Order: sequence, then structure tokens, then C-alpha cells
Amino acid sequence: MLKQVSVAIVGATGLVGQELISTLLYRRFPVKALRLLASPRSVGKKILVGERELEVEETNHNSFVGTDIAFFGATTQISRELVPVAAKAGAVVIDDSSAWRMEPEVPLVVPEVNGDDLAQHKGIIAIPNCSTTPVVLALWPIHKVNPIKRIIADTYQSVSGTGARAVQELREQARLVLDGKPTAAHVYPHQIAFNVLPEIDVFLDNGYTKEEWKMTQETRKIMHEPELPVSATCVRVPVFVGHSVAVHFELTRPMAVDDIRGILQEAPGITIQDEPSISLYPQPWTSAGHDDVFVGRLRQDVSCPSGFVMWVVSDNLRKGAALNSVQIAEELLARNLI
Amino acid sequence: MLKQVSVAIVGATGLVGQELISTLLYRRFPVKALRLLASPRSVGKKILVGERELEVEETNHNSFVGTDIAFFGATTQISRELVPVAAKAGAVVIDDSSAWRMEPEVPLVVPEVNGDDLAQHKGIIAIPNCSTTPVVLALWPIHKVNPIKRIIADTYQSVSGTGARAVQELREQARLVLDGKPTAAHVYPHQIAFNVLPEIDVFLDNGYTKEEWKMTQETRKIMHEPELPVSATCVRVPVFVGHSVAVHFELTRPMAVDDIRGILQEAPGITIQDEPSISLYPQPWTSAGHDDVFVGRLRQDVSCPSGFVMWVVSDNLRKGAALNSVQIAEELLARNLI
Repeated sequence: MLKQVSVAIVGATGLVGQELISTLLYRRFPVKALRLLASPRSVGKKILVGERELEVEETNHNSFVGTDIAFFGATTQISRELVPVAAKAGAVVIDDSSAWRMEPEVPLVVPEVNGDDLAQHKGIIAIPNCSTTPVVLALWPIHKVNPIKRIIADTYQSVSGTGARAVQELREQARLVLDGKPTAAHVYPHQIAFNVLPEIDVFLDNGYTKEEWKMTQETRKIMHEPELPVSATCVRVPVFVGHSVAVHFELTRPMAVDDIRGILQEAPGITIQDEPSISLYPQPWTSAGHDDVFVGRLRQDVSCPSGFVMWVVSDNLRKGAALNSVQIAEELLARNLI
Repeated sequence: MLKQVSVAIVGATGLVGQELISTLLYRRFPVKALRLLASPRSVGKKILVGERELEVEETNHNSFVGTDIAFFGATTQISRELVPVAAKAGAVVIDDSSAWRMEPEVPLVVPEVNGDDLAQHKGIIAIPNCSTTPVVLALWPIHKVNPIKRIIADTYQSVSGTGARAVQELREQARLVLDGKPTAAHVYPHQIAFNVLPEIDVFLDNGYTKEEWKMTQETRKIMHEPELPVSATCVRVPVFVGHSVAVHFELTRPMAVDDIRGILQEAPGITIQDEPSISLYPQPWTSAGHDDVFVGRLRQDVSCPSGFVMWVVSDNLRKGAALNSVQIAEELLARNLI
């Protein structure tokens, strides 16, 4: 039996925080005590956790005393400031932000891929960006058999990846457009309703956005392939939940599509939806609320002898955020690393 | 001065037909007489053309007598049946459908790229698929300087590419979703509102859709590169007008990004929108109603020494359909090929 642990959730009122609460519940994570932490304006708010109502407390430098595991699902700024505080107080931090992912001493973990990296943790563990996780999860079992030489990934990312305000903005703008009225953009630089925006996170000097660069760097770190060529275009689409990715990947050796399909069928955390004759393929609308990463449209890439193409969709709040975090916590307990 | 010609538009009541009418008008195409043709259920409908009202006539085997140029903007089925009839009656047909594009004796033309192919026409000229045209237009001037060795294109295609019923379906479904009500899908296999669908046109045995395969085959034909490696994933997104494409292309030799930008700046039909610091990049919402193909997010592909990435957006009803058709007609007149 797993030991009981004290858990804190930072950003408990946000989309990821809410998903963390429900994930801990439905996976029956052995929570001894739960603290819900958020910004001052949410303090006192009551949140139903199972059959109990818990009051939201302010996140501050004293929040983590007695906490075994602190899940951070807030902004990068808050993670930058408070993750070390929580770690210093003795909590093991599982951080959803990009603040600590590329630090050499911080394991960046997708449990099905590199759970072994958890053994090196020094109190802070990061989870990958929500568009990186499903791609790495689907590529890893293939990579183990036939090493991947190059990845091109173009994304179709939902607004819930940005947060609750973005979901609200899409709703409001969509209604205004349908009513023939002008819209205003607040969360994104431009209208997102009935539009697509090739800008996620800030632009870097090399012309990539930070979101695209995360995909390159995080994939390399998780897969322990520091030179792996990875190029992405990350695009926001008017979808509420579910990130989709068109993935073109090249292997070391040619391979039969059916052999790749066989590998994915056996792989943990993946459901194959790939029956073109009945229009069965992954969609964000149908992936929302599910734990698995969905893979379909698998085919030989006609532009490259050892190349393949697939379509990967997952609930960005689940495997892209909360589920991956809770799975890491489960691994820590199972491996006696806490 | 260009000679005056008799023009017929097949599918005059559809989205492409309507755009053909307005394009002929605003480009002051020398129309001597205009016949608006459509299916029986639209017969008698009156359409305002400039300051005149024209009555829609039924498309049948006698519709093309005395017609110099027949624009087809209807279904592939109608083009398959009636394009030869129109050509036999003496009209030069400019066909927007996929019915005749790959026939060896039918030029498949983007005037800025392969206008010279028009000289070989035998009465039928095809225009490319609306997602292929902007990509080829943007790649061609680069290809002339530094030959392209491989193209990977992932698309974000609007519902107007399907037709007026699809636009209506997106509107209706979006409102139902916003109101928390269930939706029904009629035009597409699944809900398109707040969702993305990696299925456009039928599936082929090789796992690609016909839409994706068109991109491969049509690009090769237009560029006169029968072996060019091209791989696409074509995805429908909940956008009304404007197709976007993430294009990854490899050149024969490495090249400076600024040199590619310089080539595109001089190229006809292209507007560069590429100022990351002010979030300026092409968007479907802002490209709608414009003739030019918009290019942005141009950068070196970090996964390939001679590779580059760009983001291409165009109004699929304009350069993707009506404008390209009318430009072909203009070329035919200018080259005395009619």
C-alpha cells in the first residue's frame, strides 16, 4: 500500500488546478491532507473536493510547511518565485510551468518515457509543455526500436492551454462574430474566434517562438538525445480543449507501417484511432476528458523512404498537464523517492 | 486593348461563383456578355452584377453556344460531365474542380508560375486545389534560384473551401455549442465547430487523403518536377475563409533567410507579413477578401541545414479559386490564346 502524503496544489482555481484536483480523486491518489493555494483574489473561495468543501488559501512563503508534494499549475512567474521556496520547505515539487524544465538538475519527466530520471531529483521535477508530452509519448516506443533521426511537428493547440480567461475570450468573441459584431482581443494579440494564430509564447531571435523551441529542447532532454533535430510550428486554433499535432518523423531504417502500428498498440498511454473507412481518427473534441494520447492517420511519408506521418491528439489539461503530474507523484511513491 | 469576350459561369450561385462575378467586375475583365449558370433549383434566381440584375439559367448541354470562356466553379461531378461539353461547343474552359487537373493534355496553371503552359491548351485549363496554389506561388520564385528538394506542408483549411453549406454548418454548430446544446454533423463526418478534422476529401489506399495527394501531385505538375518529394497533412479548422499552411521546405544549397525574404519581396502576388515584435504574421481572418498570398514566420529550419519554414495564408476563394481563374483568362487574352 502506498503511504499517505500531504499535498498542496498551487493555482488550484485555474484550469490545470481544477484538473489536478479531479485527477487526484479519480486516481485515488493517497492524499492525507490537501491544501488549495491560489492568488490573494481567490482566497476564501470554497472548492468542492469529493464530498468536502475546501477553502482556498493564499500562496506565500509559509504555504509549504509539512507538505510532501506540491503541484504547481500556476504561471511561470509564480513557479520561478515559489518553487524553490516549496522545495526548501521539504516538499517535492512537480511543476507544470516552463520555469525549471531546462535546468540540468531538474528531471523533465513523462513517466512512460523517462520515469527513471526521477531517481536524480533534488526536490524539483518538471513536466513538459502540453504539446510536447503527447508527441514524445507516441514517438518514444518507436525510437527504442528504430532510432528517430528527425521530427517535424505542426500543432493545432486549444485555448485552454492558455487558461480560463482564454476560454472565456474564445466564447465571447465567437458569439460576437456570429452576431455580426466587432470583437476585441485581450488575451491573444488578435482575434482567436474563427481564426488561427501562429504565435504561442514569445518570439526568439531565431524566428521560432518559445513554444516551438520548447518542443525542440524538451523533446531532446526527455529522450536523452541532445542533438535530435526537431522543428515545430505551433499554432493556436479556436478549440476549447485538446491539442492536435501533425507529426512527420524520420527513422534510422525503413520500416513497415504495420510494425509501427504494432509498437503503438502495445505502448502504455496510447489509444490508436485509425480507421479511415469510417472516418475514425483523433479529434480534440472527442479527446477532451480522456487520459490517453490518441494516435491516427499513421502512414508512410511519401517524401522520405524512412519517414512516417501521424496525427496525435490529447487532452492538454490531462496528459498534457494534470495527469502527467499525478503520474509522476505516483511513480515517486512507487519508487520510494519521497 | 483586350478584346471583349462572352463569359459563362457555372456554379454562379455558389461561393466560388459569387467570387468569380465580383472578381470579373473589380478587375474590369472585358466581358461582352455574361451567363450565370447553376443547378435547376437556382434557375430564375436574380443576381446583381454591377448595376444589372441577371437571371440564373440552368446548366445543360446547350448552355455554352457562343461562349468564349466558361468558368466552372461547381462540383467535380458537374465538371466531369459538362466541361467537355463546353469545350466542344467552342468555349475555353477554366475549371476549378479536381476533375481534369491531372489529365496530361490539360494545363494546370498558376499564372505567376507556369503561365507559359497555357500555350498548350486544347480547350480545357484547370486551376489547382485551393491549398496548393498559395504554397506553389510562394515556393516557385525560391525554387528558380535554389531548387527545392522536399516539401512538408500541414494545412489549416477553412470551411468555405467546402462550400456555402459548410459555412452554414459551422455557424449553426458554433451557436449550439455556445448555448450548451448538442450538435449534429451533416456536411462533415464530425462536428467542425471548436474542433479540427484531419480529413479532407476521400481516403486513398496509401493512408493519405485525396486532398493531401492533390498537394503532392499538383505541385509536381505545376512546377514541372515530376519526382519532387511532397508530403502533406490537410486539416479542416473552424475558420470561415482563408487557408493557412505551415510549410517546411528543403533547398539544394544552404541560403540566408534574408535572401529568401528578398526573393519573396520581389515576387508577384505575395505580401510579406513578418514582424514578430509586433505580432505581425498572416492570419486567415485578415487575409479574407484580399488577392495576395501572405507569407510570414520565415525562418531557418533548425532540423535541417538547407531547410526553411514559413507560414502561408491566402483567401481560398480568391487566389485559391476565383482570382486564379480570372488571371488565367486575362493571360489567355494577353497571349492571344483565345
